[in-house]
Amino acid sequence: MQRNELVGIYPGTFDPVTNGHVDIIQRGLQMCDRLVLAILVNIDKTPLFSPEERLEMLTVATAHLQPRVQSICFSGLLVNAARQYQAKVILRGIRAISDYEYELQMALMNRTLAPEIETLFMVPAGRYSFLSSRLVKEVFSHGGAVKDLVPPVTFEMLQKKYTKS
Amino acid sequence: MQRNELVGIYPGTFDPVTNGHVDIIQRGLQMCDRLVLAILVNIDKTPLFSPEERLEMLTVATAHLQPRVQSICFSGLLVNAARQYQAKVILRGIRAISDYEYELQMALMNRTLAPEIETLFMVPAGRYSFLSSRLVKEVFSHGGAVKDLVPPVTFEMLQKKYTKS
Amino acid sequence: MQRNELVGIYPGTFDPVTNGHVDIIQRGLQMCDRLVLAILVNIDKTPLFSPEERLEMLTVATAHLQPRVQSICFSGLLVNAARQYQAKVILRGIRAISDYEYELQMALMNRTLAPEIETLFMVPAGRYSFLSSRLVKEVFSHGGAVKDLVPPVTFEMLQKKYTKS
Amino acid sequence: MQRNELVGIYPGTFDPVTNGHVDIIQRGLQMCDRLVLAILVNIDKTPLFSPEERLEMLTVATAHLQPRVQSICFSGLLVNAARQYQAKVILRGIRAISDYEYELQMALMNRTLAPEIETLFMVPAGRYSFLSSRLVKEVFSHGGAVKDLVPPVTFEMLQKKYTKS
Amino acid sequence: MQRNELVGIYPGTFDPVTNGHVDIIQRGLQMCDRLVLAILVNIDKTPLFSPEERLEMLTVATAHLQPRVQSICFSGLLVNAARQYQAKVILRGIRAISDYEYELQMALMNRTLAPEIETLFMVPAGRYSFLSSRLVKEVFSHGGAVKDLVPPVTFEMLQKKYTKS
Amino acid sequence: MQRNELVGIYPGTFDPVTNGHVDIIQRGLQMCDRLVLAILVNIDKTPLFSPEERLEMLTVATAHLQPRVQSICFSGLLVNAARQYQAKVILRGIRAISDYEYELQMALMNRTLAPEIETLFMVPAGRYSFLSSRLVKEVFSHGGAVKDLVPPVTFEMLQKKYTKS
Repeated sequence: MQRNELVGIYPGTFDPVTNGHVDIIQRGLQMCDRLVLAILVNIDKTPLFSPEERLEMLTVATAHLQPRVQSICFSGLLVNAARQYQAKVILRGIRAISDYEYELQMALMNRTLAPEIETLFMVPAGRYSFLSSRLVKEVFSHGGAVKDLVPPVTFEMLQKKYTKS
Repeated sequence: MQRNELVGIYPGTFDPVTNGHVDIIQRGLQMCDRLVLAILVNIDKTPLFSPEERLEMLTVATAHLQPRVQSICFSGLLVNAARQYQAKVILRGIRAISDYEYELQMALMNRTLAPEIETLFMVPAGRYSFLSSRLVKEVFSHGGAVKDLVPPVTFEMLQKKYTKS
Repeated sequence: MQRNELVGIYPGTFDPVTNGHVDIIQRGLQMCDRLVLAILVNIDKTPLFSPEERLEMLTVATAHLQPRVQSICFSGLLVNAARQYQAKVILRGIRAISDYEYELQMALMNRTLAPEIETLFMVPAGRYSFLSSRLVKEVFSHGGAVKDLVPPVTFEMLQKKYTKS
Repeated sequence: MQRNELVGIYPGTFDPVTNGHVDIIQRGLQMCDRLVLAILVNIDKTPLFSPEERLEMLTVATAHLQPRVQSICFSGLLVNAARQYQAKVILRGIRAISDYEYELQMALMNRTLAPEIETLFMVPAGRYSFLSSRLVKEVFSHGGAVKDLVPPVTFEMLQKKYTKS
Repeated sequence: MQRNELVGIYPGTFDPVTNGHVDIIQRGLQMCDRLVLAILVNIDKTPLFSPEERLEMLTVATAHLQPRVQSICFSGLLVNAARQYQAKVILRGIRAISDYEYELQMALMNRTLAPEIETLFMVPAGRYSFLSSRLVKEVFSHGGAVKDLVPPVTFEMLQKKYTKS
Repeated sequence: MQRNELVGIYPGTFDPVTNGHVDIIQRGLQMCDRLVLAILVNIDKTPLFSPEERLEMLTVATAHLQPRVQSICFSGLLVNAARQYQAKVILRGIRAISDYEYELQMALMNRTLAPEIETLFMVPAGRYSFLSSRLVKEVFSHGGAVKDLVPPVTFEMLQKKYTKS
């Protein structure tokens, strides 16, 4: 049976990109033909990395998955970005119980706004179940080792960032 | 881009089939090309409906989704059934927090047994968030109204079952 | 302002009655004019105490709250018992997170069956937050001290029960 | 039986008022004779709407429930406001598991401060289970449709607010 | 500073022993001088392995930790076993949220019965976070591979058990 | 058997010290020979009390446990402080489900950074299960009674602080 391609969107702050993100992206590609990696640009928050830096980081970290992934920045409603890129599913990795609650609320809200788009929750690899961007920044800034937890490009950009500032 | 079809498997006891099940099946078909609806035949438990009755019920309740769904019975490991039918994803609807915990354990176990198959969690429609087969049986057996909660075929088979016994 | 009395129903298995039950009943009477204490008679389960024994136990344990409480037995749907006794609210004490999930499902189901009846959740006293009928039976049967955890009548009836059997 | 009226207090930030709030207020009036709707004025936080705006919004949104509801502003301890208005119960709607945890802590703290006042938890209508003031603001500010999620007065005041600023 | 030795007790059903159990035992010995491994013999349940078989399994699986561990069987209250063996701490591994709730209840109950004994919760290795004795039995009985999840002695005894029956 | 002493580290913000903290410290000393009480100095947050004030508060509040406790300030990674003081276990009191999730993440991260150090979770006394430093500050600042919830030294320092400011 021939069929239309299935496009998914994977939103996040990616500040910075971790191995947990890459793990979910790879799992998502087992099922989606293409994935739009959508970096949330939220003017209310002050991320460590600028949107441009995060776009570069995500593009480099997923270069081996080209041309099936495409990194973009977006602001505003996720469902608008999803529609713009013809994504039919939203991918979310879930770690902990508290995550799950918030994710469920967002999923139901997004369904109200865009009933034709489904949210799918995926389980990250066990060894990344404790991993978050916040934790990576906290540990790195205090001199802890994060090399095994992030892609090489993230590690380099973290080093530059903390040398400068 | 032409692509291979994406086959999913949706396992359950379906004792009996509820509108919540049908809701997840329809959502799953927004993303999967075909769905295998897999009725777990567990010799340790004594369901209200026999495997044959459940197979009939599920087939009738999803007749409008033909030929994209196929109802089967299975015993043993879910991942073996998934492989037999070339399913690349396992679909699970999740309702509550306690569900989520057990589902997460099963997903991780299944990944250990079959790394090539991903488990995807989907959120049922809000109005079915409290619905379970057990609740349907309990309410029906005490004379409560379940007509809006189950497909017509389930309602008929519940009536027959409780008239007989 | 004159008003109609507010009747609540407090359902449970009460196998046996604990101080946690009595605590919730007393709290409920701060708000309800009368409370119907409704013992669930479930033919599928084999309780330690017969319905008659539990009715006696609950009546004696709440004698000091007469005539504002009334102990009854019921089978079938809780909402039918609630309607029969003109109860407008269902009272539930909640202890733990897992409780809460199941209670939420029951509350939503009961609302579907009887929209005019509201379920109210109350928090038991901190010192009873770990107390359950099952735990009382388990501890008592192994010779543990439960005297501070149950009303005197429960303690007596536990002693009789375990001497006999 | 003649009895004193039962007064409840329903505290919140109401920034802005949603249909979920109105739903809980209506449910609360099935049991309480009167409800004090208490807007928390917290000088540490910067709400979107001023206390005066929120008071107006809440008063208009519950005009159909007059004279059984009364909207007020308060700062400081909730139990002090409760005592001032002779409220014997605190009403809280609960949505999610994480809510429940925080709510439980507050309920126990309030009991320590005012043992004569009980906290009652109520379940909102299923279709509002994902609704929060924060989500409404976020969606509206990005051009998403919230008309079905808030009272007309809230919608008007949101439009004015975002046109001005 | 010279000090008395610290003895811990690690209770469980051990039906059968998994690598998750051994992981917690080894972690416990980083802190306790000696550990009593206490197999719960519950006459109400029908385990797959007899108490004698489980005692042998646990003894063999922890032979490399001799003489700092001692395997025993017990029935009745855990705190009585703890006192008999001079254990000052009860060790529990926790996996999931639902576990945690039940464990918390048990810990508070045990504190009521024996205030001098503390319950300590430990986190198992990430790769065992989904592992339970029940899952091992289920997977093995359906022909799934569990070799990496259990000690060699458990694997042998599982093979014997399922060949016989 | 003679043995090396067991040193634990109990980290926190202690802003201010509550009876819940002292309760966990005393429980920890039933098992650890010595405890390092480690005040986190986080330059990103603005605590009510300065590090010096918190150090004094904690030292006074645990004076009766001398010389088995030692209060220190630390910044950066907890595992570095643990290693500096030869602590083999990290003690954490846990209250609620949401706590537990975050604590679990931290425990797994700390294990990655320092595999030789174990995190142990302890259950506080039931009457402190709702107590947090944040709640104490909130209640005190609004004139609520907190005398039974904090050590005398905390109460005095709270009074001074709120008189001054």
